[in-house]
Amino acid sequence: MSENRVWTLQAYPEGLDFASAIHLDRRPTPEPADGQVTIAADWLSLDAGTRMWMTPRTDSYQPPIPLGSPVPGQVMGRVLESRAPGFAPGDLVRAFGQWADVSCVDALASGLMKLDPTVSDPRLHLGPLGMNGWTALVGIEEVGRVKAGDTVLVSAAAGATGMLAAQIAREQGARVIGIAGGPAKCAFLTEQLKLDAAIDHQGPDVEAAIAQAAPEGIDVYFENVGGPLLDAVLPNMAHYGRIAICGLMANYAQAQPGPKRFDQILSRRLQVTGFFSPDFAHRGPELTARLRSWTDAGKLMTPFDETIGLDNVLTAYARLFTGANIGKVVVRVR
Amino acid sequence: MSENRVWTLQAYPEGLDFASAIHLDRRPTPEPADGQVTIAADWLSLDAGTRMWMTPRTDSYQPPIPLGSPVPGQVMGRVLESRAPGFAPGDLVRAFGQWADVSCVDALASGLMKLDPTVSDPRLHLGPLGMNGWTALVGIEEVGRVKAGDTVLVSAAAGATGMLAAQIAREQGARVIGIAGGPAKCAFLTEQLKLDAAIDHQGPDVEAAIAQAAPEGIDVYFENVGGPLLDAVLPNMAHYGRIAICGLMANYAQAQPGPKRFDQILSRRLQVTGFFSPDFAHRGPELTARLRSWTDAGKLMTPFDETIGLDNVLTAYARLFTGANIGKVVVRVR
Repeated sequence: MSENRVWTLQAYPEGLDFASAIHLDRRPTPEPADGQVTIAADWLSLDAGTRMWMTPRTDSYQPPIPLGSPVPGQVMGRVLESRAPGFAPGDLVRAFGQWADVSCVDALASGLMKLDPTVSDPRLHLGPLGMNGWTALVGIEEVGRVKAGDTVLVSAAAGATGMLAAQIAREQGARVIGIAGGPAKCAFLTEQLKLDAAIDHQGPDVEAAIAQAAPEGIDVYFENVGGPLLDAVLPNMAHYGRIAICGLMANYAQAQPGPKRFDQILSRRLQVTGFFSPDFAHRGPELTARLRSWTDAGKLMTPFDETIGLDNVLTAYARLFTGANIGKVVVRVR
Repeated sequence: MSENRVWTLQAYPEGLDFASAIHLDRRPTPEPADGQVTIAADWLSLDAGTRMWMTPRTDSYQPPIPLGSPVPGQVMGRVLESRAPGFAPGDLVRAFGQWADVSCVDALASGLMKLDPTVSDPRLHLGPLGMNGWTALVGIEEVGRVKAGDTVLVSAAAGATGMLAAQIAREQGARVIGIAGGPAKCAFLTEQLKLDAAIDHQGPDVEAAIAQAAPEGIDVYFENVGGPLLDAVLPNMAHYGRIAICGLMANYAQAQPGPKRFDQILSRRLQVTGFFSPDFAHRGPELTARLRSWTDAGKLMTPFDETIGLDNVLTAYARLFTGANIGKVVVRVR
């Protein structure tokens, strides 16, 4: 492979018009420098959070992607060449690389990790056995402090992280209500994930629908979305409730006004905590082992929304924001 | 005393026009029913939070004051008549009573408490040795988890609770920055309270002033105000910072838009917690004992903003919202 296809950011996209801003370039296949490896991608993980860095905003948790640079993203594949100790050609690995056929990554800075090749479906390494799983588990157990009998509400509950959070909360003995867009996803939540209730955020009065599903209030809200949805949830929180914020997807492309019902944090004595998975990446092995015990036992449903071909990345990426996906959005590169 | 003067709520006030809405009525002096006592007020505590219940909003932590009812508030004085076990005429007590010469209170529901008459200034029971003190102590120690070396920011730092929070944080070894309105209050913060820095929220660029005073970011923000001030603070929070919300004074008269920079909770992985003192009133004796050890040792400055005469309550109450007061606002009833 002497030529490498790489998606590069040429401009900060407007809304969902990714095609005008992100172009597929052809560049020479990279050679690893000392401490680096190159990875031939089998799959890319597409994540809503990346959208934040496709803006010129400097107040996110990562700086904006410089224009002209490859789009960063999680990749899983085989080591092509290694100049990093502990990694050899052919190893199955995961790292923060690029939307490209071949990513060149620094072993230390990229979270490069060797993966267990005996996992039944390797894509699990990009969902429940990776950052989505860690986020769901830490968010439910440690940030939300969910206990048996709690009423737990999860937004984007048909998405990669939300569906895991919802199922983990259910495993902990909570009553779980999922929020998703449209009847098909809501049916998925109650019929496939076996949640106790589902709420369609496209419905006419979401605040009233939550009140009806949780008349005693929400003890823990696992938040992925923000925007007007959060305003529908705040007056439905139980006193001393916890809100675990792992994402504010409604804000990524464009800043949103703050929640009008912010004062409910005081009135209801809520605890609102922002968290994100790179902060606990060092606990990956321990968290992954726990998650794998659930996936091996068939306790976590983990559908994938798979698109074939690196040239189709932008179409796949838009699915995250139009809400077309049920489950984790991945691209099969080869 | 056969006639009792009682401030009653005739309408929900607009802004600071209390005089059109709250009238001084003359009613018969109440007689205690079983389980009740009457208290002849020496002082009233005036608290910004009461303003929330002078609106028809039902989403606060107490229901609105019914029109035609006495305005509720904390009173300190002597028991006049008692039909509650453990209380006798002449006892020095504090309770949630009414803005009146004589309050009739239920011993259990009103937080009625006998006070130590040996405290040098009895007004201390309405400030540092009461709810303001409990709120400051719990907010700094337990909600904010302040530790030595932290940078702590306190809003309304010349107010009854803020000045205690700021001084307690300083006692814990934190670097403390106070926010107040105008040069006189800012001078009070640095010269009298010995805070490390003061920021005038009437100044031209509060966000930049905070950044300059805390270039490494704010570890703990003790929040009394909300509104635009919170937006100036959010981008100045250090990663993993805590925001302890004990009040949102800017919201009381009128709902405010939510903080535009709400997304900083996620970007900076903040923890935002609402709390209020009735929730830990059962810990009053333990908290009061600790606070008294500081007041007795002269470690807490506790100025009072005292107005003489029950007929001047409305003028005194407005001082809280125009920011005229330095320290705890009380009214000397007799």
